[in-house]
Amino acid sequence: MMKDFPLNKVFTLIESGPVLLVTTADGRKKNIMTISWSMPMDFSPDIALVTGSWNHSFGTMMKTRECVLAVPPVDLMKKTVGIGMCSGTDTDKFRKFELTPGKALKVRAPLILECLANIECHVTDYIEKHGIVVLSAVKAWIDEDRKERRVFHAVGDGRFIVDGRTVNLRKLMEGKIP
Amino acid sequence: MMKDFPLNKVFTLIESGPVLLVTTADGRKKNIMTISWSMPMDFSPDIALVTGSWNHSFGTMMKTRECVLAVPPVDLMKKTVGIGMCSGTDTDKFRKFELTPGKALKVRAPLILECLANIECHVTDYIEKHGIVVLSAVKAWIDEDRKERRVFHAVGDGRFIVDGRTVNLRKLMEGKIP
Repeated sequence: MMKDFPLNKVFTLIESGPVLLVTTADGRKKNIMTISWSMPMDFSPDIALVTGSWNHSFGTMMKTRECVLAVPPVDLMKKTVGIGMCSGTDTDKFRKFELTPGKALKVRAPLILECLANIECHVTDYIEKHGIVVLSAVKAWIDEDRKERRVFHAVGDGRFIVDGRTVNLRKLMEGKIP
Repeated sequence: MMKDFPLNKVFTLIESGPVLLVTTADGRKKNIMTISWSMPMDFSPDIALVTGSWNHSFGTMMKTRECVLAVPPVDLMKKTVGIGMCSGTDTDKFRKFELTPGKALKVRAPLILECLANIECHVTDYIEKHGIVVLSAVKAWIDEDRKERRVFHAVGDGRFIVDGRTVNLRKLMEGKIP
């Protein structure tokens, strides 16, 4: 079940560089796209991403000025890759990939209930020269009961790296972490 | 030994979201900083990163318009965190962390010879409003003999995730990968 996740910790959901799903809704249709070019912006709820302006989702994102970033754990890896291989112009991706849209609180784009976390975002800027979309998280959710919590990372050549062990070096970083 | 790495594949060195080291040189002094906010920009040799303008390296990067992005494997994890905890204003980080500067081909900033890969970059833009530095890779190097090739990812709260297994899904992605 999706529970509230604090906005000032949203960057911890994406800083490790997971492949992400982005949902949009244009009033008639919900859509999903896959991205692996994103980064946190400082210790803020702002997130930058790069995506092609040819993507169906891109147009909806620019028009509605909102989206949801969903974080898929590794048991959704093949679906996530499949979502990136077809287009919302001719495919209902929620149906095709058997994913459940959930109602967001502050945007019309849907959550993906099978994901580990969902971040509702407003589009606050688009730097056309570089194709960079700047998002601001306005509400975030996490599924604390999700058994599989490892995310996965794209190399960019068809290979994906699954999370291995976690090392806690917090004690080496006193004063540097909010 | 560092060997040539093709510029059109540079994005594959950073797309998985590894923690990176950034070197600069102002003519008198070489410096290193640690970053974990970066992303590839399309299938291009361009890379975006966010860093604080208060960093010593930031000033040098803006003045010289160049830097090297070095990719540290997991056996350099503690040094990488340590590098992020001190400042180039009062520390010779190459000496303190026993790292070897190597001569770059196209920039004055040094390579780090212990790293898995090094990417020589020009600073091509700075989007001050968002603190985004846009780099363009001009030369890249990889150490093909490096035994430890797993990189590591920052969660952002003091925890780091080491690469686990790699899954090749290239056959699901025909036509989508350059």
